[in-house]
Amino acid sequence: MHILVTNDDGVNAPGLLALAQAMEAIGKVSILAPDRNWSGGGHVKTLDRPLRIKEVSLADSRMAFASDGAPSDCVALALLGFLEDPVDLVVSGINPAANLGHDVTYSGTVTAAMEAVIWGVPAIAFSLDGNDHHLGQLDYRPATRVAWAVVHTLVKHDFPGGILLNVNIPNLPLEEIKGFSITRQGLRVYRDRLDVRVDPRGRAYYWIGGDAPTGISESGTDVGALANGYVSITPLQLDLTAYPTQ
Amino acid sequence: MHILVTNDDGVNAPGLLALAQAMEAIGKVSILAPDRNWSGGGHVKTLDRPLRIKEVSLADSRMAFASDGAPSDCVALALLGFLEDPVDLVVSGINPAANLGHDVTYSGTVTAAMEAVIWGVPAIAFSLDGNDHHLGQLDYRPATRVAWAVVHTLVKHDFPGGILLNVNIPNLPLEEIKGFSITRQGLRVYRDRLDVRVDPRGRAYYWIGGDAPTGISESGTDVGALANGYVSITPLQLDLTAYPTQ
Repeated sequence: MHILVTNDDGVNAPGLLALAQAMEAIGKVSILAPDRNWSGGGHVKTLDRPLRIKEVSLADSRMAFASDGAPSDCVALALLGFLEDPVDLVVSGINPAANLGHDVTYSGTVTAAMEAVIWGVPAIAFSLDGNDHHLGQLDYRPATRVAWAVVHTLVKHDFPGGILLNVNIPNLPLEEIKGFSITRQGLRVYRDRLDVRVDPRGRAYYWIGGDAPTGISESGTDVGALANGYVSITPLQLDLTAYPTQ
Repeated sequence: MHILVTNDDGVNAPGLLALAQAMEAIGKVSILAPDRNWSGGGHVKTLDRPLRIKEVSLADSRMAFASDGAPSDCVALALLGFLEDPVDLVVSGINPAANLGHDVTYSGTVTAAMEAVIWGVPAIAFSLDGNDHHLGQLDYRPATRVAWAVVHTLVKHDFPGGILLNVNIPNLPLEEIKGFSITRQGLRVYRDRLDVRVDPRGRAYYWIGGDAPTGISESGTDVGALANGYVSITPLQLDLTAYPTQ
């Protein structure tokens, strides 16, 4: 079992290290992740410039590869041959904020998993619902145990083709997490506002500002499961066709 | 009727101008598009830097706004209040290459339309299947007529909420286009290859190279309709949940 670990927060993020350490108990781990933060960067295929890959050392002295491409570029590079051994599973994360509802097409964490599925490799995106915490205070240990449990369980089964899993984990001590819930994509409520400012030379510039998104905490959805203390596991497909519902 | 026109090829692309001219027969047109090419740039929400917007003059002397953000950022800026008048419809394109199958989450053209739908505004992405032609030789006139016909027809009906239309147009003279086909998202076959090169200082760099994607030309799909000379209209939703199929 050869597992590629990537993320969208950059190769030095603590969530990536935690995930890599958890995956080591399951198989051989390779790491190829962006050299900077790509949060909200979407599903990217970089064709207009070449990409660089450098070897870096993580906080536990393990070696990893960092690229100047997006998370999905990192997955493409790895699967197209940068890693010599075939990859059996791609895991992405652990993102320090939840990826719920409409977040999935923006999210570098989730779109990295989409890229893997396009190349025929099973993939799981892991996000921790840490929105209201300072990143330095986040405890990844419960999420790491959850990620291990999800992968450990899934490798015993046939992973359906064409599907990725979007896993969101409550920011709770392990004993307070109520269990796992298979969910559907819920509804995000974005609260972005345009923040217009004027620079020292008198010219306007525009921040996409406002407040962090909330969500509609409906039963059966990722938003609802997380709000109730469950790990939400949403199977996602890449066919976006709005089939008639009659 | 206030129509926002955007694209992912940059505000000066001929496809945008053709689309804006066609929309003028239907309503008031505003243009806010990226100041550079964002093809393959995905669904982006730029939160880590402010965005600039400048006024530019297009080839027919019309005024437009250009931003240093992604196509989806342009839509967010416009809908969050940069444009004072409420926007009733967002159209994106005309892209000089088809956006079929799994292209939709990568495509700046399509993700601009996704962004509009997230903010509750109907949206249509238009792409011309011009892959094998040099861009300078592309004739946008048939596609422009098609775009006009699609919007002209749709504004007479209630546009369903939460859905965007992904319209792909054959690169044919108008009289050779066979008609319109409501389709589902088909299967792209990507033929990317890793192209490893060595720079003058002896360090490796990596192009995502290979050949342009093909597709599986199945009946009922976007790929199939286009291959048979039809305009494909695929309704897309933002719920990616892989619902059980039993």
